[in-house]
Amino acid sequence: MLTYPNFSFDITHKDQKSGARIGRLKTPHGEIETPNYIFCGTKATVKGVTPDQLHELKTDIILANTYHLMLQPGADLVEKLGGLHKFMGWNGPMLTDSGGFQVFSLGEGTMANEIKGKNTGKHDNKSLISITEEGCVFKSYIDGRKIKLTPESATHIQQQLGADLFMQFDECTPYHVDKEYTARSMEMSMRWGDRCLSEFERRHNGKQAMYGIIQGGVHSDLRRVSAEYTADRPFFGTAVGGCLGGTEEEMELVVRESLPHAHPERPVHFLGIGQLKDVFRFVRLGVDTFDCVIPTRLARHGTAFMKGVPGETINLKNAKFREDHTPLDEGNNVSASCNFSKAYLHHLFKAGEMLGMQLLAQHNIATINRLMREVRAAIKAGTLDELEKEWIPK
Amino acid sequence: MLTYPNFSFDITHKDQKSGARIGRLKTPHGEIETPNYIFCGTKATVKGVTPDQLHELKTDIILANTYHLMLQPGADLVEKLGGLHKFMGWNGPMLTDSGGFQVFSLGEGTMANEIKGKNTGKHDNKSLISITEEGCVFKSYIDGRKIKLTPESATHIQQQLGADLFMQFDECTPYHVDKEYTARSMEMSMRWGDRCLSEFERRHNGKQAMYGIIQGGVHSDLRRVSAEYTADRPFFGTAVGGCLGGTEEEMELVVRESLPHAHPERPVHFLGIGQLKDVFRFVRLGVDTFDCVIPTRLARHGTAFMKGVPGETINLKNAKFREDHTPLDEGNNVSASCNFSKAYLHHLFKAGEMLGMQLLAQHNIATINRLMREVRAAIKAGTLDELEKEWIPK
Repeated sequence: MLTYPNFSFDITHKDQKSGARIGRLKTPHGEIETPNYIFCGTKATVKGVTPDQLHELKTDIILANTYHLMLQPGADLVEKLGGLHKFMGWNGPMLTDSGGFQVFSLGEGTMANEIKGKNTGKHDNKSLISITEEGCVFKSYIDGRKIKLTPESATHIQQQLGADLFMQFDECTPYHVDKEYTARSMEMSMRWGDRCLSEFERRHNGKQAMYGIIQGGVHSDLRRVSAEYTADRPFFGTAVGGCLGGTEEEMELVVRESLPHAHPERPVHFLGIGQLKDVFRFVRLGVDTFDCVIPTRLARHGTAFMKGVPGETINLKNAKFREDHTPLDEGNNVSASCNFSKAYLHHLFKAGEMLGMQLLAQHNIATINRLMREVRAAIKAGTLDELEKEWIPK
Repeated sequence: MLTYPNFSFDITHKDQKSGARIGRLKTPHGEIETPNYIFCGTKATVKGVTPDQLHELKTDIILANTYHLMLQPGADLVEKLGGLHKFMGWNGPMLTDSGGFQVFSLGEGTMANEIKGKNTGKHDNKSLISITEEGCVFKSYIDGRKIKLTPESATHIQQQLGADLFMQFDECTPYHVDKEYTARSMEMSMRWGDRCLSEFERRHNGKQAMYGIIQGGVHSDLRRVSAEYTADRPFFGTAVGGCLGGTEEEMELVVRESLPHAHPERPVHFLGIGQLKDVFRFVRLGVDTFDCVIPTRLARHGTAFMKGVPGETINLKNAKFREDHTPLDEGNNVSASCNFSKAYLHHLFKAGEMLGMQLLAQHNIATINRLMREVRAAIKAGTLDELEKEWIPK
């Protein structure tokens, strides 16, 4: 029987009113308190932020993407160089995904629209060549060569990368497919999950732990089957993946109908979701960790997450900040948020200076780490509703 | 009589053998030991590096460019926001140039080729509209509007920006012009220098100090006239500017024939020059400070300054670094040089990740700050020749 002796997840507090919970997730690279936010370091770097800065910003955990890293620099090389932690200079807990999300998305990234139901009706994923029971074949976005990814290879690659936490290989279904396709796909993902576990066990060195992924699209009965499957298998954690519907309500319903059937004592990760409002909404349903590219992606476009601002963000490119001498948010207690005026950040974006992106990335990470600290404190104090009103005023 | 009560320059040591000297340059924002290197923060940011990081890298002094800042965000706004130091969050010594170099260069940057004699024979500066005794008119590279820059306005703008050290307005002559043009231009720059001093004195608040600039192209007799002019006027410092010739030997000759006629007790700044070999060559001729964009510009192209490497640099994009697990240079004693392998940096550049540029910018700045520390120690110890062989092996 597969066990994880160097990992543990202890639920230390449950908010009876809201369903939110506090946990301690232990990995070989340190312990984090949940709920927590996993920042994306797609190509083995959180874009524009050094590992030292991540620590200064009080970041607990990051992730990297198998799909990108298997293509450049390649998993063999990362393994040869001592694994991802050493390669990128991050010594804290880390997660990798399985690569499936990117393979099944249209080349790069537009699956994010699919997840949220913003589909275009077209299925023109030109880089995906085939999906079969064995796995999938796709074209590299770097050099066009054909690459096969299977449950076994996705598992082995993640073992080579060496992150603490990793994901089973699954098919991520788009919004526009029918229930029959979604059901067949989900069943295949379940068989793929078993193959991932077998492959994982073959080389298991105690330093990594695998999550199963709940699929099933927007269909409650399928989500239940998939959740029960993950609970039945020796996964360390549970992830919610796949298409989550076209509206916020639909997304909430999917999670609400999935998690009661997931293993109650395992950490729950919500794949690819992480606006401020999502954090408040889904910690109440028992989600323990979030990940999303938006803190750094928005930063590159001049957008800063703000506490207490309707709509969550402001855009520093806006002319109204041209003469604004105030800093972003001294409550964050980090240099990027305290020591530079909005006018200066506005100038950096007007002038096309990369320091603007860097400072906003730092600010956004600090803001979200502060959000998660305050969310954990509020869960313990039973004041999550009040905190939400502070962060996201109507 | 113009005085600089909050500034001083004391030559504390002279190397009789080489002509190099050690000085202490005091400004209202702190004291630096010379020889030293002034890092370019063109648009009020050293590209990709935060002020906190500049301090960690042991940076003593930076500069910003009047030309860029007068166009974006504008000197009025910088002044309103408390001056450049406050605007960009740098609390150490700072210098600004007068804007002339960029105006007289071809839109942006190709004057660098002119200085080093790499002229194309064409004089197609489309942004420069006119040069008259009054000053010059040019088109903004941002929005095409016509802008006049005069000795008076260049001085006033630099007073608004508020850097500690600043430059007189001068015409920077290209390589291909004849001696007659160079002589007339130099005489005009001398009259412009007097107008700068008058304008400066009108608003002098004791917090800034002005450098005169030696012009005269590659002509020894003109350089001497210009140097004697700067020595005769109440400038705080002396800068060597303008066309320096077509070869390293010609450049050395220009400096060798200028500086003996400059004021012997004033700090000497060499405008826009700063490869490693230049530092060794010109400290011996009495240059006290250097500036150049190359530490951060080369970084953005994957190039790292290295101690002890023939040719001064390596390029991390080179395939030979793909599997190189060694760090850049642990002797620099900063994270960017010690904690990341060349293989990781190679990967970041292959993957187009901005962290690569950031880490190399930090490494290059750290390398040059270390060079300057070692150069100062070697001047004191009389071992400059030995140090040069260590840094730049044949």
